[in-house]
Amino acid sequence: MRSPIPDYLLEVVEACGSDNPGATAGYIPELAHADPDRIAVCVSTVDGIVYSAGDADSPFSIQSISKPFVYALALTELGLDAVLDRVGVEPSGEAFNELSLDRESGRPLNPMINAGALTTHALVGPATATPDERFERIRSGLSAFAGRELGVDEAVYESEWGTAYRNSAIANMLRSYAVFDGDPADVVRGYTRQCSITVTARDLALMAATLANGGVQPSTGRRVASRQVVRQVLSVMMSCGMYDAAGDWMSTVGFPAKSGVSGGVLGTLPGQFGIATFSPRLDAHGSSVRGVRMCTRLSADMGMHIMDAPEPARSAIRRDRVLRGPRGNTVRVCSLQGTLQFSGAEHVLRALSDSDGPYTAPAGDRPRGRIDSVILDLRRVHSVDDVAERMLREAVRRLRLDGLRVTVVDPEHVLYPHHRAGDGASDAVVPSLAPLDGYRRL
Amino acid sequence: MRSPIPDYLLEVVEACGSDNPGATAGYIPELAHADPDRIAVCVSTVDGIVYSAGDADSPFSIQSISKPFVYALALTELGLDAVLDRVGVEPSGEAFNELSLDRESGRPLNPMINAGALTTHALVGPATATPDERFERIRSGLSAFAGRELGVDEAVYESEWGTAYRNSAIANMLRSYAVFDGDPADVVRGYTRQCSITVTARDLALMAATLANGGVQPSTGRRVASRQVVRQVLSVMMSCGMYDAAGDWMSTVGFPAKSGVSGGVLGTLPGQFGIATFSPRLDAHGSSVRGVRMCTRLSADMGMHIMDAPEPARSAIRRDRVLRGPRGNTVRVCSLQGTLQFSGAEHVLRALSDSDGPYTAPAGDRPRGRIDSVILDLRRVHSVDDVAERMLREAVRRLRLDGLRVTVVDPEHVLYPHHRAGDGASDAVVPSLAPLDGYRRL
Amino acid sequence: MRSPIPDYLLEVVEACGSDNPGATAGYIPELAHADPDRIAVCVSTVDGIVYSAGDADSPFSIQSISKPFVYALALTELGLDAVLDRVGVEPSGEAFNELSLDRESGRPLNPMINAGALTTHALVGPATATPDERFERIRSGLSAFAGRELGVDEAVYESEWGTAYRNSAIANMLRSYAVFDGDPADVVRGYTRQCSITVTARDLALMAATLANGGVQPSTGRRVASRQVVRQVLSVMMSCGMYDAAGDWMSTVGFPAKSGVSGGVLGTLPGQFGIATFSPRLDAHGSSVRGVRMCTRLSADMGMHIMDAPEPARSAIRRDRVLRGPRGNTVRVCSLQGTLQFSGAEHVLRALSDSDGPYTAPAGDRPRGRIDSVILDLRRVHSVDDVAERMLREAVRRLRLDGLRVTVVDPEHVLYPHHRAGDGASDAVVPSLAPLDGYRRL
Amino acid sequence: MRSPIPDYLLEVVEACGSDNPGATAGYIPELAHADPDRIAVCVSTVDGIVYSAGDADSPFSIQSISKPFVYALALTELGLDAVLDRVGVEPSGEAFNELSLDRESGRPLNPMINAGALTTHALVGPATATPDERFERIRSGLSAFAGRELGVDEAVYESEWGTAYRNSAIANMLRSYAVFDGDPADVVRGYTRQCSITVTARDLALMAATLANGGVQPSTGRRVASRQVVRQVLSVMMSCGMYDAAGDWMSTVGFPAKSGVSGGVLGTLPGQFGIATFSPRLDAHGSSVRGVRMCTRLSADMGMHIMDAPEPARSAIRRDRVLRGPRGNTVRVCSLQGTLQFSGAEHVLRALSDSDGPYTAPAGDRPRGRIDSVILDLRRVHSVDDVAERMLREAVRRLRLDGLRVTVVDPEHVLYPHHRAGDGASDAVVPSLAPLDGYRRL
Repeated sequence: MRSPIPDYLLEVVEACGSDNPGATAGYIPELAHADPDRIAVCVSTVDGIVYSAGDADSPFSIQSISKPFVYALALTELGLDAVLDRVGVEPSGEAFNELSLDRESGRPLNPMINAGALTTHALVGPATATPDERFERIRSGLSAFAGRELGVDEAVYESEWGTAYRNSAIANMLRSYAVFDGDPADVVRGYTRQCSITVTARDLALMAATLANGGVQPSTGRRVASRQVVRQVLSVMMSCGMYDAAGDWMSTVGFPAKSGVSGGVLGTLPGQFGIATFSPRLDAHGSSVRGVRMCTRLSADMGMHIMDAPEPARSAIRRDRVLRGPRGNTVRVCSLQGTLQFSGAEHVLRALSDSDGPYTAPAGDRPRGRIDSVILDLRRVHSVDDVAERMLREAVRRLRLDGLRVTVVDPEHVLYPHHRAGDGASDAVVPSLAPLDGYRRL
Repeated sequence: MRSPIPDYLLEVVEACGSDNPGATAGYIPELAHADPDRIAVCVSTVDGIVYSAGDADSPFSIQSISKPFVYALALTELGLDAVLDRVGVEPSGEAFNELSLDRESGRPLNPMINAGALTTHALVGPATATPDERFERIRSGLSAFAGRELGVDEAVYESEWGTAYRNSAIANMLRSYAVFDGDPADVVRGYTRQCSITVTARDLALMAATLANGGVQPSTGRRVASRQVVRQVLSVMMSCGMYDAAGDWMSTVGFPAKSGVSGGVLGTLPGQFGIATFSPRLDAHGSSVRGVRMCTRLSADMGMHIMDAPEPARSAIRRDRVLRGPRGNTVRVCSLQGTLQFSGAEHVLRALSDSDGPYTAPAGDRPRGRIDSVILDLRRVHSVDDVAERMLREAVRRLRLDGLRVTVVDPEHVLYPHHRAGDGASDAVVPSLAPLDGYRRL
Repeated sequence: MRSPIPDYLLEVVEACGSDNPGATAGYIPELAHADPDRIAVCVSTVDGIVYSAGDADSPFSIQSISKPFVYALALTELGLDAVLDRVGVEPSGEAFNELSLDRESGRPLNPMINAGALTTHALVGPATATPDERFERIRSGLSAFAGRELGVDEAVYESEWGTAYRNSAIANMLRSYAVFDGDPADVVRGYTRQCSITVTARDLALMAATLANGGVQPSTGRRVASRQVVRQVLSVMMSCGMYDAAGDWMSTVGFPAKSGVSGGVLGTLPGQFGIATFSPRLDAHGSSVRGVRMCTRLSADMGMHIMDAPEPARSAIRRDRVLRGPRGNTVRVCSLQGTLQFSGAEHVLRALSDSDGPYTAPAGDRPRGRIDSVILDLRRVHSVDDVAERMLREAVRRLRLDGLRVTVVDPEHVLYPHHRAGDGASDAVVPSLAPLDGYRRL
Repeated sequence: MRSPIPDYLLEVVEACGSDNPGATAGYIPELAHADPDRIAVCVSTVDGIVYSAGDADSPFSIQSISKPFVYALALTELGLDAVLDRVGVEPSGEAFNELSLDRESGRPLNPMINAGALTTHALVGPATATPDERFERIRSGLSAFAGRELGVDEAVYESEWGTAYRNSAIANMLRSYAVFDGDPADVVRGYTRQCSITVTARDLALMAATLANGGVQPSTGRRVASRQVVRQVLSVMMSCGMYDAAGDWMSTVGFPAKSGVSGGVLGTLPGQFGIATFSPRLDAHGSSVRGVRMCTRLSADMGMHIMDAPEPARSAIRRDRVLRGPRGNTVRVCSLQGTLQFSGAEHVLRALSDSDGPYTAPAGDRPRGRIDSVILDLRRVHSVDDVAERMLREAVRRLRLDGLRVTVVDPEHVLYPHHRAGDGASDAVVPSLAPLDGYRRL
């Protein structure tokens, strides 16, 4: 069987690429001459499989898509608070307000606009770094996200640097507010080189998948950013990644994304996968026309909207029985399943609670008599998140305080990993459920 | 056992409520006199269990928290496009821009600011509705979200209406742009009554849970909004719900929320639960100081940040074996587990694919010889979302085209529901796995 | 002889009225139906002679041209400081900023925009005045400027009031900032009536001439505003009268003016005359197209630009001789002429000073010997302004301190009015120059 | 007699300089170290006499006071239209809007803000000029206004250039809009040198007097700008010279002025005189605290407010008699006086007109019978402006067409200068009034 995924992506390219409206970025001569008919879409899984259609290996300059990754580098180096002192996280709202600096402090509103991106560029590296050292650090950092060494398109760099008046204006204004130190011209030059780093749609998909994977590059397995940094980067992409159309993107497409003036769009569905599209012609917001179309299609087809409530989770409780043992003892056997988060754990706690709790218990097969022991069967549970873990362990602790004997069947250590055993509970954690011969249902 | 959840919530109240800074809303006399020491937090599951701590049943006026729900009513009545013609979805950015109307059209930037909320109020009901009829429709609509009949605090209404100059200004400005028809004074009066609807933190938690539950009220089981409407409402809450601190809220707290000037904050984690907090004293943005604290704490403790990538899903493939049957036939038995979304289904497809696919296959126990049939065992799969369903059914179809015999073990109809059987596949969908006696592992 | 002035004005009408572009104000139905072909120009002297051409007696509603006069009424009633507390004097700059309120205080930027005009309307009359009393006060005040009782066009009033949403928005916003007290609807109604007061171009020319005349109505001779109030009104008209084109008007036309949406334009050359034009079709700024043309033409032809330096004044010194008397005494006879302001008086002082002054004296017929007495001959001086008066009287005082005998020939009391004689000088003020028989030139 | 003017200025310095609040410009280190206690005031007449008090010869850098003069240079070189294409004339309104560029075109709002001043700097000189040539042209041009060669304070230049980030930002932004060509850094360097040109308060007073004198430098007698250019410069100074306090300055002080960050203020009363003050400490608007005080005092004392209507001009008609001659002929003798502008000429025309004119004639001693001839006696008329000249000559022409014999007594050629005689009128222009023996009053 051939995987249907590449066929699906080809269909997306064909459906979204039938015409090619918009225009390439006119203000950068080298980009204006780019072949406008190229088109690509890539999806990368969090374990590094990249599906693609179209010109997935066609190189282009990364432009603004570098912004979230350099923001990640700055966050990693300086920490969140130090970066927030220099660059905010609020959407800039009006597009005409070309500077979007805070009126009092001069702080750029967010790292996705040029003012913020120039500032995060300037923040990378030690204060003593030369411009070349700073750039190399950034090139190397982005390469780590991509999983291969990325180069620079010198022709694009020269072309942009020759007309970088707007960015020079912004950098000087930032310097006048002391948002960064050093020579504004150096910062603009370095930022322009950063924008000229060459990538393919495949690279971008892997960079997106690194974010989706919580900061671990899927191909190399290397952690290139912490979970906290990734969360911050994705949040800012969600709020500010699509410039003045951020709200429209949120409600229509619904996943964090970033577009670049050379025609790329990168998007991430946390925990799931990264995507990238490429098509050089731009709309009025400066985003790829066909790229936005492809993202919209992918979002609808693949359920990528983060506000789409998934189907209500199947009950975490697979079975909940009370059995009478051969010696008259009463045991409750509660078998759980799936991935446990707050809502699943809450179901379990509810089932285990007395009926005198502060809530109205649902009608159920709660036993009338007194229960002597509880068996919590986790054999079919795949994972337990932090809050569910705390809730279940607290439940075990409380049941014991109530005088019950509790056994947790946890062969794969989803609730009580070896390294965090404790609570006096680990002794009752067993790898398998002993046969309940002679027990019968009450 | 007493459920630890109420204890946890009590701990949240105590930790976040130790001091009580800020001030009640001074411009509405009746609110200024409210008891500022009340504090509550509630969590409602998507099946309607409400956990709470503090003054969860203390009544207060809903104020701006009515906005997302009246937006939902307008979307339900008019459809998305008609509402978008009148009210945008972009964050307003600067707080001082009190009107936040589009410069050309006069269209309010989003439905969470007063200009947008006045407009959505005016859009509810038929054009011929009297102000009273429109208000009753709104009161009744909000009651459906809460699951009980809500009333109006007439003293608050009188107090606000007496000084509703700002809203009168906005309504007249909107009317001058013909954003809505009818008498601006009627709209302001109706909107002021809408803001005076009385709720408790418990009500708000259930209203939030209705959104978390995709539009079905958990207690009544009644669908009060479509999934599409809920998705739009949550998207706009995420972008614009916390006014000019939207970006900060997104990166710090990370779930869609709405605050009101009487001290309530409502938040939703799609598919999981709804939360509500209440504490009357406000910060400079007009949001409850202790409410924001409690939301931040809940987000951190309960993993509510929507950009927090969940732990990489355990492989959807529980076991994948190739067996040689007694008659020399070869069968592949692929057992899946858990909730299947794109990434899980992609794993399955990858496993089932030939090695001549367009991607680099991971090293595996792929059989060398030819396989005659495939058994897809879905007994441990709890749910399959749309994209995964399409992917798996397409895989089944392709395997058959390749000449293989495919059997799907799907006792609970997670992949082939009765009403959507077809593809010539349903005949091979069986409720249980026949014993594989005489088969042995290759 | 027929005066050539009406012929000149007729020529202006014909030259500027040959085509009729622009459009009548569409948003006020009653104005939209006005005959767009009417055209008039009037010039009123400061003694009340009105020259005109075209439809000088055609009635129209005064609209925004009422603003400077109601501002004058408020200034007269409350004083400058109290009015400045409520309404600023700065141009509003950007046209799109429809409210133009100070961000902190809500104070309107100036009284020529609607926000400021609504506020000045509200300020007129005692706090206890009913809306009708306030309006009557304003109608009566404007009538005093016009020199006849003005009425109201009730059809225009009804037409405007029916769609006064924008002004209602502004009034409510002002009320929310407590810029004025009382009911915003009353203020909008009153202001709309104020705008509906009916005038002719002839009326406006007389109103403008009243300002030119320092506040005294030329026909009635009644003082309707103080010089200070008039100066303030003209200053604000100059800075803010032509909305967002204020700078262009200043440099091109150069006299204080105010336009109205019904097609009138009023202008004043302080001390000289008032002008008014009328033609209903408006340009994009909301000013009469042909009215602006006529004003531009009048400014160029009549030297109305206030920055046009007049020809350097002819020397104030008509003759300055030193004569030797029959008894050997030496007398200096200094004959002055014209209107004396600072620069003229400075010339005189320079002539009278010793050569050891701090300045380089021009070459002249300064006598070598000692002078015994000075005769200051003011018979040809028409007027002396305040600063010149102080300078000349100080010179007389100093000459006496130097031991000289000083006689001032001032038959018309231009330097030493009866009521302000003093300085021990009045005894030497004589009505005529005694014959200087026997004196000869040195 | 010592002239009282220096004593008056000394009094102004003492009254306004008793305390010294504010702060020197902190952002230019060299200025921050300037002696803050210096204070000076100078008044220069249009014939070049400079009165002063205080540190009138203390040198300081000209800073923003260079702006109007470089604007004058650009206007002179390129013409008004070409300059208006690049720089507007509208006040910028809000101070925080640091760029104040037109949203569409990027054109600076006016030449008094830095964006506009950088642009006018760039406009001076041929396109091929080197930065040094352009600067020399400007230095030389400002020297021509001052009447002496001005130098540059290199320490101030270095100090400002080292921190000229704000201006670099603006220049790059302008360049990005193609408002000017060439290297933004060259423009900022040149502009910074322009601001570092050294002047004294005495220099500034003479520069101001050059504007007051219609463009002719009073000491050198050289015309350095046309009347049209001066009018434009003064208009823009009036509208925009005092930044965001332009309206307040207009209503309070009322003459065109420009302040600089080194502590100078320059003001002009057209046709009368120029003034300059100096005191380094600045207010929140960046204008000299004590300089603004002194200007306010001078305006009040010296009647410098351009909206102060002068005292109504004394009638231009000194005497108007009708005499019966010895042969029964009737002659009207109309003797005029003073300076004739429109209003004076209008009086004359009114007197000479028939009573069948379109206006209501005032009651007078108009003769009943028929008049044969008119004698217009201009011996006491000092000057006649353009409009009055045209009016009087037209009146003479019309009287002749009516068949009257007209004689104009114009010994000093105020109405009929030799070089513009004509109209067939010059033959009747006589130098003296023939004796009217035998004539008696009617």
